[in-house]
Amino acid sequence: MRVMGVDPGLTRCGLGAVEGRPGTPLTLVGVGVVRTGADEELGARLIGIEAGIEQWLDDVRPDAVAVERVFSQHNVRTVMGTAQAAGIAVLCAARRGLPVALHTPSEVKAAITGSGTADKKQIGAMVTRLLRLPEMPKPADAADALALAICHVWRGGAQSRLAEALARATRKDVRR
Amino acid sequence: MRVMGVDPGLTRCGLGAVEGRPGTPLTLVGVGVVRTGADEELGARLIGIEAGIEQWLDDVRPDAVAVERVFSQHNVRTVMGTAQAAGIAVLCAARRGLPVALHTPSEVKAAITGSGTADKKQIGAMVTRLLRLPEMPKPADAADALALAICHVWRGGAQSRLAEALARATRKDVRR
Repeated sequence: MRVMGVDPGLTRCGLGAVEGRPGTPLTLVGVGVVRTGADEELGARLIGIEAGIEQWLDDVRPDAVAVERVFSQHNVRTVMGTAQAAGIAVLCAARRGLPVALHTPSEVKAAITGSGTADKKQIGAMVTRLLRLPEMPKPADAADALALAICHVWRGGAQSRLAEALARATRKDVRR
Repeated sequence: MRVMGVDPGLTRCGLGAVEGRPGTPLTLVGVGVVRTGADEELGARLIGIEAGIEQWLDDVRPDAVAVERVFSQHNVRTVMGTAQAAGIAVLCAARRGLPVALHTPSEVKAAITGSGTADKKQIGAMVTRLLRLPEMPKPADAADALALAICHVWRGGAQSRLAEALARATRKDVRR
């Protein structure tokens, strides 16, 4: 299963893709950021984000896309741009018929580190270890995008295992 | 000058276009809403908003697009969808090379009614009067989209008149 994670933002939109299944080692497919200038008009920035994500989807060819669920918090100006970049990521994936999942920051932190309140450094350290990278991916947005993708592989796997267990339980019920 | 106003939203995205110049009567070009189902996935909803806005841009062929500037307020869930719908409207317009303006709700209210704290009914009444319509456009999102378009014609006109006045003043300076 190949998953592309998106840590949305207008100034830096983190993108990272991993390949793997729950219970087996994960592999890095690619990691980077799409940047747009704070001095550009909003329309030009959104076009830049769209073009960057489309290019990544063309290159990576993921089976699913995981996007950070944005909440209204902290700086109002920033969160609106973040929501818009997230919306474009969801739009680009949905136009290709790819399944899209939204994970909250605390879901990602809990999946990767075991703690929903882990800091960026801890996330970066675990992403580096899980993907057996020579150094921590930078900037933090890039590492966060990989964390989203890893979280999705693991949660997707967990959901599949649960579905399998339920299916087995149902079959047993039927046999009785 | 033909302006298309967008009152962004996922459940109801108001769209309204007017034609006119400051100081002359305004004409209604079209008004309506693009709707998406609250039970649909986010990706499908954003695709629906994009397709609806593209169709309107094809039909209306505006010279400019005015979108409501979204603030983080009230219901967090709603404002994120609103920001994403607004982002898609800006993206669609920018991809066509159309100028995009963002106006705050209070700027629109002040332009249309003289008061930045006017209520929806007052906005609807003024839009109906200014466009000489037989009845108030419904739902309120449709009327708000027309108010945005009217606000933009008037503000754009004011800016143009200011630019003209400045140009005249500069020419006088040069002649001296």
